[in-house]
Amino acid sequence: MKLPKALSRVIEEFEKLPGVGPKSAQRLGFYLLHVPQSQLDSFGEALSELKKNTVLCSTCHNVGEEDPCWICSDESRDQEMICVVEDALDVLAVERSGTYKGVYHVLHGVIDPMSNIGPDDIYVPQLVKRVGNNPKIREIILATNPTMEGEATAMYIVQKLKTQSTNSPTDSQLILTRIGRGLPIGADLEYADETTIHRAMEGRREF
Amino acid sequence: MKLPKALSRVIEEFEKLPGVGPKSAQRLGFYLLHVPQSQLDSFGEALSELKKNTVLCSTCHNVGEEDPCWICSDESRDQEMICVVEDALDVLAVERSGTYKGVYHVLHGVIDPMSNIGPDDIYVPQLVKRVGNNPKIREIILATNPTMEGEATAMYIVQKLKTQSTNSPTDSQLILTRIGRGLPIGADLEYADETTIHRAMEGRREF
Repeated sequence: MKLPKALSRVIEEFEKLPGVGPKSAQRLGFYLLHVPQSQLDSFGEALSELKKNTVLCSTCHNVGEEDPCWICSDESRDQEMICVVEDALDVLAVERSGTYKGVYHVLHGVIDPMSNIGPDDIYVPQLVKRVGNNPKIREIILATNPTMEGEATAMYIVQKLKTQSTNSPTDSQLILTRIGRGLPIGADLEYADETTIHRAMEGRREF
Repeated sequence: MKLPKALSRVIEEFEKLPGVGPKSAQRLGFYLLHVPQSQLDSFGEALSELKKNTVLCSTCHNVGEEDPCWICSDESRDQEMICVVEDALDVLAVERSGTYKGVYHVLHGVIDPMSNIGPDDIYVPQLVKRVGNNPKIREIILATNPTMEGEATAMYIVQKLKTQSTNSPTDSQLILTRIGRGLPIGADLEYADETTIHRAMEGRREF
């Protein structure tokens, strides 16, 4: 079956996206044949402008329009508290919860030896330096995902920061915390996996 | 949470696509921040060129690069047999099976009174005219989907073509067929719905 080149090109581009299989890509390609040319042009332009009009904040490495980003330059936020997350989507999720008023540090990945990603391939050294340069920082919340890689990355960062603060001459009281792990709201104990129950027991709190 | 405009614009464009929810759109938008600019440019260009470099064949209304399309202009195919399908993706599916050597007619939709789509909103009149103009045509296979709308569309077309052939002076022997319905290969009788079993019984064949 010969597909028009213009169509198969669009299908190929969709196939490159994560979570889009050959069948979905085909469906999207054929769907777009029915939309107005103006929508196609606007989609195309949005794509090629995407990276030109976004920058990574040089402080927290979050995605933004300006450097420093709006969170790092917001004086009403607690600049002495850093929440370390795996990627920019996690910042969005924490912001949506509305419970956090500190600043962030986006790692853009996790340490994953299986995929050959070491601490220097993500923004870990920048975090260590950022904390070392600013003795005012009070707390680091490690909010990487509760996966094997997320836990390992959190442990690595904790080790690095502890070594650094022991070696530093100033007697700073840096608190390192890990986000709570346990049963998500609405979950059923009956269906929870063992590790989650184990973490929920460990993370129990008094009334 | 303030997202950069360039990013939220890309996310909005993805959200317009069928089957892409707000969360997937967000994930795709953030993912694209990490791909090379050249891939973004090529994706964008592919989108805006999509419709400029494709045409609908004026005979079968399939999507192609030329008019008539490669199927209608292929003399090795049986031009006296027309397979009527709902959309261009269905042509792809039938071609993939490799069992059909006739030509097609793409309706680009189904008759669906609930969505206000009548026979004149899809390529039904064109099919009736095409068959009326060509007394050589021997068989029409109605291969619309076995859904309520697909069945109704097939029935409507059969009625129209029958009326037309009764009124025509030439004594043509036009055969109207419906694709077989029954249990798909690999299915389990135990889990098949009643209508499928009913159709499978009706469509039984002698060894």
